[in-house]
Amino acid sequence: MRVKTKRPTSLAASRLKVVGVIRSALKTRGDAPRQGSEGAPDAWLEVRPWAARALDGVAAGDELIVITWFHRARRDVLKVRPRGDLRNPLTGVFATRSPDRPNPLGLHPVIVRKRAGRRLLIGPIEAIDGTPVVDIKPVL
Amino acid sequence: MRVKTKRPTSLAASRLKVVGVIRSALKTRGDAPRQGSEGAPDAWLEVRPWAARALDGVAAGDELIVITWFHRARRDVLKVRPRGDLRNPLTGVFATRSPDRPNPLGLHPVIVRKRAGRRLLIGPIEAIDGTPVVDIKPVL
Repeated sequence: MRVKTKRPTSLAASRLKVVGVIRSALKTRGDAPRQGSEGAPDAWLEVRPWAARALDGVAAGDELIVITWFHRARRDVLKVRPRGDLRNPLTGVFATRSPDRPNPLGLHPVIVRKRAGRRLLIGPIEAIDGTPVVDIKPVL
Repeated sequence: MRVKTKRPTSLAASRLKVVGVIRSALKTRGDAPRQGSEGAPDAWLEVRPWAARALDGVAAGDELIVITWFHRARRDVLKVRPRGDLRNPLTGVFATRSPDRPNPLGLHPVIVRKRAGRRLLIGPIEAIDGTPVVDIKPVL
C-alpha cells in the first residue's frame, strides 16, 4: 500500500524554474504593445535543454498559452490606473492585466508558426526580449 | 533624466507569493475532475488580507482567470500519458494540461458568482481545497 504523506506548501516549493526564454525584436517595455492582439510581432521561444522533452507533441499550427514572468515588473503594486491612463480610476490589479502585480505572470495565447528542435516561432506576443518563460500549455 | 538600471532575473525574484487560497468541497486529487468544465463545483477564493486592495473593481458576474499553484503536483515530470490513460502515448507536458510539470501552475477560467469582501465565490473550478492562488486576471 502506498502511503500518501502530506507535503506542506513551503516557500521553497513555490520557487519558479525558468523553462525557456523569449527572443524578440521588442527590447523594452516602451516598445511593447499592451496585448499580443494589438500589433505584437512573432518571437522565438527557446526552451532550455533540460526541458526539451516536455515539448514532445508540440507542432506548427498548435494554439498554446505561454506563461511568462515579467522580470521588469513591480511586485509591490496593488492598484493601478488601467493602461497607464491618468483619466482611468485607480483599480485593483486583479481586475486588470497590468504587468505590475504581486506575481507578475503573463498569459500569452499564441499560435506556433514553426518548430525547430527546442525553438518555437510563436506569435503574436508582446513579451520583450529576454522574458523568462515558466510554462507552456495547450489552449483548452 | 531617469536612468534605467538592468535588474537581473535572480532566483529570489521568481519566488511566488501566495495571494489567496481555494476553499472547496473537493478534498483530494482523486475527487477532482480534470477540467473545470467537467462537472466541477463552485468554490470560495479567499484573498489574503495584505492583497485585498488588489480586488477593487472585481464584482459578481466578472469572468476571471485564476492562476493556482498545484501544491500536490510532481515537478520532475517532463512526459505523461494524457489524462492518465495508459493507452495514450507518452507526451511532453507542454502539450498537455497535466498538473505534473516543472512549474505546476493551473489556469482556471471562472465566473464570479458572489463577492463578500475579500472572498469570491467562483466556479466551476476543479482545484482542491487548500490550493494556493498566485494570480487573478480578467479574461481578455
